[in-house]
Amino acid sequence: MKLHYSKNAVCAAKGFKAAAVASGLKKSGKLDLALLYSQNPAVACGVFTKNKFPAAPVLICRKHLKAKQAQAIIVNSGNANCFTGKAGLKVGLNTVDKTASLLGLKVTDVLVASTGIIGKQMDFAKINTALPGLTSNLNAAGGSHLAQAIMTTDTTNKEVYTTINIGTKKVTIGGCAKGAGMIAPDMATMLCFITTDASISYPALKKALEGAVEGSFNLISIDGCMSTNDSVIILANGQAQNEMIRLSDSGFAKFALALKEICLVLAKMVVMDAEGISKFIAISVIGAKDNAQAKKCALQIANSNLFKTAMYGENPNFGRIVAAVGASGVQVKEGLKIKCSPLKEKNIKVMVDLMVGKGKATVYTSDLTLEYIRINAEYN
Amino acid sequence: MKLHYSKNAVCAAKGFKAAAVASGLKKSGKLDLALLYSQNPAVACGVFTKNKFPAAPVLICRKHLKAKQAQAIIVNSGNANCFTGKAGLKVGLNTVDKTASLLGLKVTDVLVASTGIIGKQMDFAKINTALPGLTSNLNAAGGSHLAQAIMTTDTTNKEVYTTINIGTKKVTIGGCAKGAGMIAPDMATMLCFITTDASISYPALKKALEGAVEGSFNLISIDGCMSTNDSVIILANGQAQNEMIRLSDSGFAKFALALKEICLVLAKMVVMDAEGISKFIAISVIGAKDNAQAKKCALQIANSNLFKTAMYGENPNFGRIVAAVGASGVQVKEGLKIKCSPLKEKNIKVMVDLMVGKGKATVYTSDLTLEYIRINAEYN
Repeated sequence: MKLHYSKNAVCAAKGFKAAAVASGLKKSGKLDLALLYSQNPAVACGVFTKNKFPAAPVLICRKHLKAKQAQAIIVNSGNANCFTGKAGLKVGLNTVDKTASLLGLKVTDVLVASTGIIGKQMDFAKINTALPGLTSNLNAAGGSHLAQAIMTTDTTNKEVYTTINIGTKKVTIGGCAKGAGMIAPDMATMLCFITTDASISYPALKKALEGAVEGSFNLISIDGCMSTNDSVIILANGQAQNEMIRLSDSGFAKFALALKEICLVLAKMVVMDAEGISKFIAISVIGAKDNAQAKKCALQIANSNLFKTAMYGENPNFGRIVAAVGASGVQVKEGLKIKCSPLKEKNIKVMVDLMVGKGKATVYTSDLTLEYIRINAEYN
Repeated sequence: MKLHYSKNAVCAAKGFKAAAVASGLKKSGKLDLALLYSQNPAVACGVFTKNKFPAAPVLICRKHLKAKQAQAIIVNSGNANCFTGKAGLKVGLNTVDKTASLLGLKVTDVLVASTGIIGKQMDFAKINTALPGLTSNLNAAGGSHLAQAIMTTDTTNKEVYTTINIGTKKVTIGGCAKGAGMIAPDMATMLCFITTDASISYPALKKALEGAVEGSFNLISIDGCMSTNDSVIILANGQAQNEMIRLSDSGFAKFALALKEICLVLAKMVVMDAEGISKFIAISVIGAKDNAQAKKCALQIANSNLFKTAMYGENPNFGRIVAAVGASGVQVKEGLKIKCSPLKEKNIKVMVDLMVGKGKATVYTSDLTLEYIRINAEYN
């Protein structure tokens, strides 16, 4: 499967358009409001944060997605619209209403996402003023503008797409993501939008997305902080005109695998662009009692500030890995083995063999750096 | 109850002596080997790390404390003697044997503790050479030398004692601790030695110590990293000649309260001297479903890198507190209340009301600073 890191990946599938504007929600004057649009109603589903304070847009998406279809996603950066109470919910609903009205869609066919500061009221007037220009500017080359507009402390846009053959038809799956801080399973300060022109049943799309998120975004951790706004949303509009993929089809595994690969690439891009990162670290735990224990152990290491600062300092203080393994509570033999690629490299692989069974997992993380502290001491 | 922050607190109770030397385990040439000694066999118990890789000295202490008494503790810094396998265990046993022999004690009457780098073999020759000078130098004013000798990245020694009346007798309880990094419940990179001249039964001493640790060292978190060496050990030698305190006595509550206060003061000193600290933060959660949920929520906030960097930056980004509360999984109403003392202060109080019930807990933590990263990127 060939991956294309080209720009505009979220509009690579047939029938999708996007646009972005600077509405003023970001003081910097950068792009901060974007719209993703399918020419026809798409089968839609999403995976959202497990945080007990989901942001207003998450509440709205969960409700609208009960209809199992959507045609547009309106997304802003600069304000997470979280912990904003009834007033914040109203801003979210007004945003969706206005977007639906401008596009001539049912309200439930419009989804919404937000990222940025938590606990500040969002100024609907700015969104309201910017929306007409946004809807009128929708175009098939607008994907990268959207990818930029969702960035907060991200330094690069994160876009990738791929194509697979389903029967005689070429099917495209593409997406973009934002991350940077507050990244932890389940899930991250993560927004991710994926589009595909596949014709696929709702149960098949849902199962494929859940599996893909479990095998990608839930395997990354930057700072162990669970966000209130994490959303991964997929729209499948069927324009590839393949025979509809169903759960029982042979094409399902192929589609699911491709979707997981897209998610994994985006998840890794999120880690690579982690706040203040100087090292990209893959932690593989093998020899665990089962895969769940391997994952638990790998995440304990990934979230250890002492391990992360040791990686930053290129300091072979593997005792900190041992301490984290011991703290994770998983089954392990004292003769456990630890291997690590040279710490001078930018990409580091850590391998821990617990010597107990056959369980394994790999998680991805960044180091903890002076720059992370600078960014997060000042961000507001 | 009056607390005395005077030097030599661990020898404030009657019948205790201490000494320290520079054995060469620390490359800096600073004090790194110390001995605490009771003139007579003392009732003894300890609370140790729950990490799955307890260091060799922890294994030895657990075994020796089955006898419920001890008369000496030999302790070193510079090397944690952890993840050092059979060879490391042998170094620990040799250290205990030699100490017992020099002091004319039973081997099981000697306890041992270590702190420092994990995973490096410890050089017994250095200890062996230094021990005779150490035992011959035991003196009633040596407590502060011991408090200094156990320091790693600590910047100050941590000592406190108090006196209470039990019947007509004056009873003294004093102790010292080291901390600085790898601090998290249960417990911390923490060594703490407490002495008392109280006459007290083993069950009463054990219960008092466990309660004191739960209400002190298990309420602090610096970096969420559980250490392999955490040890809190108490020796009670009875030289105050009070009527023996038993679990059912009225004197028990008094003793237990004083011990808890000593532990809490030492625990707070550990946080105040946290690696790179610029803010001492007390996080009180009230209105929780129960005390356990309050503690869980407070620790989730205390361990949030985003919260800790915000405190460092004096950045009123309370959304990060909300996100941490939401991530903790405890019961909470969306109308929760957050109060915070001025961020410019060195001591910050954060109060979170979950608005659900009557559970409450206070935990203590430090901010996450540029200096923490510098220290831990380089420490080896």
